[in-house]
Amino acid sequence: MTDLLDRLRTAVGTDHVLTDAGDVSAYVVDWTGVHEGRALAVVRPGTTSEVAAVVAACHEAGVAIVPQGGNTGLVGGGVPDASGEQVVLSLGRMRTIREVDPVAGTITVDAGVVLADVQAVAEQAGRLFPMSLGSEGSCTIGGNLATNAGGTAVLRYGMTRELVLGLEVVLPDGRVWDGLRGLRKDNTGYDLTQLFVGSEGTLGVITGAVLRLFPATPRHATAWVAVPSVEAAVSLLGLAQQHAGAHLSTFEIANRQALDLVLAHLPGASDPLAEPTDWYVLVELAAAENDGGLDDALEAILSAAVEADLASDAAIAGSPAQRSSLWALREGISEAQKVEGATLKHDVTLPITRLAEWAAAMGPQLDAVLPGIRPVTYGHVGDGNLHYNLSAAVGADDDLRAAAADLSTAIYDSVAAADGSISAEHGLGRTKAAAGASYKSAVEVDLMRAVKRALDPDGLMNPGVLLPPT
Amino acid sequence: MTDLLDRLRTAVGTDHVLTDAGDVSAYVVDWTGVHEGRALAVVRPGTTSEVAAVVAACHEAGVAIVPQGGNTGLVGGGVPDASGEQVVLSLGRMRTIREVDPVAGTITVDAGVVLADVQAVAEQAGRLFPMSLGSEGSCTIGGNLATNAGGTAVLRYGMTRELVLGLEVVLPDGRVWDGLRGLRKDNTGYDLTQLFVGSEGTLGVITGAVLRLFPATPRHATAWVAVPSVEAAVSLLGLAQQHAGAHLSTFEIANRQALDLVLAHLPGASDPLAEPTDWYVLVELAAAENDGGLDDALEAILSAAVEADLASDAAIAGSPAQRSSLWALREGISEAQKVEGATLKHDVTLPITRLAEWAAAMGPQLDAVLPGIRPVTYGHVGDGNLHYNLSAAVGADDDLRAAAADLSTAIYDSVAAADGSISAEHGLGRTKAAAGASYKSAVEVDLMRAVKRALDPDGLMNPGVLLPPT
Repeated sequence: MTDLLDRLRTAVGTDHVLTDAGDVSAYVVDWTGVHEGRALAVVRPGTTSEVAAVVAACHEAGVAIVPQGGNTGLVGGGVPDASGEQVVLSLGRMRTIREVDPVAGTITVDAGVVLADVQAVAEQAGRLFPMSLGSEGSCTIGGNLATNAGGTAVLRYGMTRELVLGLEVVLPDGRVWDGLRGLRKDNTGYDLTQLFVGSEGTLGVITGAVLRLFPATPRHATAWVAVPSVEAAVSLLGLAQQHAGAHLSTFEIANRQALDLVLAHLPGASDPLAEPTDWYVLVELAAAENDGGLDDALEAILSAAVEADLASDAAIAGSPAQRSSLWALREGISEAQKVEGATLKHDVTLPITRLAEWAAAMGPQLDAVLPGIRPVTYGHVGDGNLHYNLSAAVGADDDLRAAAADLSTAIYDSVAAADGSISAEHGLGRTKAAAGASYKSAVEVDLMRAVKRALDPDGLMNPGVLLPPT
Repeated sequence: MTDLLDRLRTAVGTDHVLTDAGDVSAYVVDWTGVHEGRALAVVRPGTTSEVAAVVAACHEAGVAIVPQGGNTGLVGGGVPDASGEQVVLSLGRMRTIREVDPVAGTITVDAGVVLADVQAVAEQAGRLFPMSLGSEGSCTIGGNLATNAGGTAVLRYGMTRELVLGLEVVLPDGRVWDGLRGLRKDNTGYDLTQLFVGSEGTLGVITGAVLRLFPATPRHATAWVAVPSVEAAVSLLGLAQQHAGAHLSTFEIANRQALDLVLAHLPGASDPLAEPTDWYVLVELAAAENDGGLDDALEAILSAAVEADLASDAAIAGSPAQRSSLWALREGISEAQKVEGATLKHDVTLPITRLAEWAAAMGPQLDAVLPGIRPVTYGHVGDGNLHYNLSAAVGADDDLRAAAADLSTAIYDSVAAADGSISAEHGLGRTKAAAGASYKSAVEVDLMRAVKRALDPDGLMNPGVLLPPT
């Protein structure tokens, strides 16, 4: 391995091959703290050619690679295993915005550019890059692409795979595929871009991307709405689509437990409504400078909702500051739950017509496994996607950890039986690789393994992630 | 082969295995008439199980399969080669609408359902299936998916791959992959659906699909606009996006030559504007029942356009009948050009910022090859996509046919040099398989061949289509 380390140092410079435990520590444990591994080295190339040299060297040495972006993943997909034999390839130094073209509606970036920086550059160019998620201040575009990230703008703009036009990828043998096209239409063969998006670093290393920009939507109308049930929230979504059509940008749900944690732990947070209720929806319409009627449309939605008993009360943002404070209630949940104590996270999709029934049945079933358990439920109801995260009763974190496998299995079995997905946004990573395969047909797992073998015949790209070891 | 034919007859019934020349003739020649092949047999299964039995039988016999939908393709991707050794597998009998769920916004269909029937069923359910193209009365969803079809709604709703949530596919060995999920979010592994979309029947046979439905947009504002140049059209697009934002649904271009052919050959067609000009744009805004302001937005766009010298005149549709007659001018071009005589079709994308320069340079270059040539140019300028179709001078059709290869090569070389695509919508088929590979890097062709080998190791699915023979 000394030979390999020497070659890596030659490729990227001695300063960018980390092997000391102190230097390496931030790269081998994930955001949740659940996955902690060991690394042969952490390598930090600064250019696509350097990435190619690193991958070629590892390929020749038969050493496995774990690509890593902002290390904000929640399923252990970007950290090494416990063997100490894997190289972590961090894209964090590749932060160049290569080109912005507001007329074509494209931005071309290095994989290591932080999502918030892409948003900011787009805004400076008078355009919108719509992807938005909790970790946007530190997650990288390469990681967003590798995991097909979701977030709060999926309802209107789609997942990451719908926001990308072309990729640059270093293949498992070190060759570079230059697929950096900015075309909306290109029907000249298999869609390799879509194959790499969501592949979680198991088919190659994404080093650059051409992303789509959209017309800016500086006008907003935003409300925090009290709703009696998940069923009412789904019906309210239908109303909002009918009244606001193409301007509907956000439709997020949270239960009272989630709001309670935010009110308890987020400095400055306050309940915008007088009476507590079981469920809340954050709804937002957004439009370009010259579109009108957003406030009228929002009021029409809310009036119709109250009349149909789909809402009991609502707070409408009257200023940008009020808008921010309503959004903070939704965006603060994950952090607030972390402050509260241990969290068992799930990220599931249900067919939207089965969402209410599923959520109603799940609570009592989990309470039978661990009495007093608190489902802190929130997410993107417009996509059928709930972050169904569990907190224990106060003081019972150890019981939660002990029951974790049983609780997750109960949830996944129930999701699979309802034709849902056990990972809506977060991917499979190491945490769910085995579970993912277990809920799929043998034919589907065979197809995935055939794709993996075709592109990475030596199995050196992020082994154990996305697909379980054979 | 007698054994195989017997087995096919057992699988689908004697009536549905066609071998007589008269019965087979409609299945072995494509819409353009350019590609005419021969078939061992045409097999017409009625169910997914029957498709699986047909594919398994051919696989065991080592006989190649050509899947065919409505046979409306323009690049020879759905007709057999000249060997007489291939089986045409027609999906035309599989026409069941399996399920419509307006709340979830999904429709599940057999592959052989005609596109117009999907549109109609969606409309009956109060929803919109937005895909729209010239052949919608006879093309099938399976063919749309296999070729990643485009059309006039791509600007707002995207290509076919953005309209599909799940697929059912019979694999090259006869196994069935059931990926019929209706979830907007499902990050549990490689996106196999996107791999099959656009694969032109070379990886398997699509037998069913879950498609996305959208809120209906029964309100329209439509105009036929005279513009001085392609450059002005591109600037007008920017204006339209700024004023109409999310409601902009159509932005189509046509040159005067295209309009002249429609006026000459389409019964009842008339020029809606008093003075002729070089270029025209069909612009349409569309919204849900409760969205307002479309007429105001369209007038604002047109006023701003006239003020900025981006438009000289415009006809606004004042009734549904007038809207239909403006659309007929755009939709009649392809048929009118066929009536006029021989047509050499090209379907190219340019980066939108290079579109005007490219179109301006191309005309004189082609005239040097064949004096008097008429570029009949129209297409989806919002996507950078032109149907750059050539008619000869009157009476010179034979000269056009003789110069066809030189003309196409000149166009493709120029498109490739400008970072465009030689096939925006139509796919590669047999016509462009070799050209497609010749403009790609060796790395990209290698990747595509690796995918092909992984899923179809015996090379029996539509050989010679999409990738040239090795």
